Amino acid sequence: MKTLSLIASGAAVLFSTMAFADSHADVDPAVTARQAHMQLYAHNLGILGGMAQGKIDYNPEMAQTAADNFLALANISQATYWPEGTAEGTKAKPEIWDNMDDFMSKADDLAFEAEAMADAAGTDLASLQGAMQGLGGTCSACHREYRIRDN
Amino acid sequence: MKTLSLIASGAAVLFSTMAFADSHADVDPAVTARQAHMQLYAHNLGILGGMAQGKIDYNPEMAQTAADNFLALANISQATYWPEGTAEGTKAKPEIWDNMDDFMSKADDLAFEAEAMADAAGTDLASLQGAMQGLGGTCSACHREYRIRDN
Repeated sequence: MKTLSLIASGAAVLFSTMAFADSHADVDPAVTARQAHMQLYAHNLGILGGMAQGKIDYNPEMAQTAADNFLALANISQATYWPEGTAEGTKAKPEIWDNMDDFMSKADDLAFEAEAMADAAGTDLASLQGAMQGLGGTCSACHREYRIRDN
Repeated sequence: MKTLSLIASGAAVLFSTMAFADSHADVDPAVTARQAHMQLYAHNLGILGGMAQGKIDYNPEMAQTAADNFLALANISQATYWPEGTAEGTKAKPEIWDNMDDFMSKADDLAFEAEAMADAAGTDLASLQGAMQGLGGTCSACHREYRIRDN
């Protein structure tokens, strides 16, 4: 965690002076990156959740691929995603920066449940559904405390 | 590749019937996902490239983290990203779907060079710069053939 915070602080300073050649030039690149990361969680969770809910036929290979992708994402370092001063205009609550240790421990919880999903998703539908409980729970636990609700 | 194509075809059918609850409801979720994925490449490449060009002080730990993140992304399956009929309104050239095997082999080239970067980035700046040549080359090789240029 200390290392993560150090890197995050360093990155925050660096990024504020970096010119990024992308279409979000007015948005902090850390915000763009973390939102892209969440989007990819949603993409893979859409497949797993769709199968869990019976909206998509269960396909062990597709489920395993989505679960492996999700796990790879969960293990990607978020060290550069949360520099101070990047809450405004986003759904990130300022409480994140007051509770960075707790916030990051919730990311660890997610990675733990993602591992369980990767072990379960390709086995059968019941296993996937069981793992979805834990995985969905860690999403909700973090969103409840640290993401601003849509109205 | 056959497996990839099969999954991609299956996913294309599935996604066209799935309702995604995100802010890009008018955009195919495959497009949202692949653009998010590219954004995360750019995020990590911004750090590695910034160091290679001397715009960011070389920091072995930060370089290694960015390289590890990039490698994890490069190994994430793109099987659900490229359903037929999703070129319009994006920078993806229609040639992608005429040359899917070549397109996917370019993604394999990227993963190969990302591995080399992950081996080099934390060693020293010269190693990182060396690996950047190969990695940047695979980005360009694919963009040149398959991405529409900005005007």
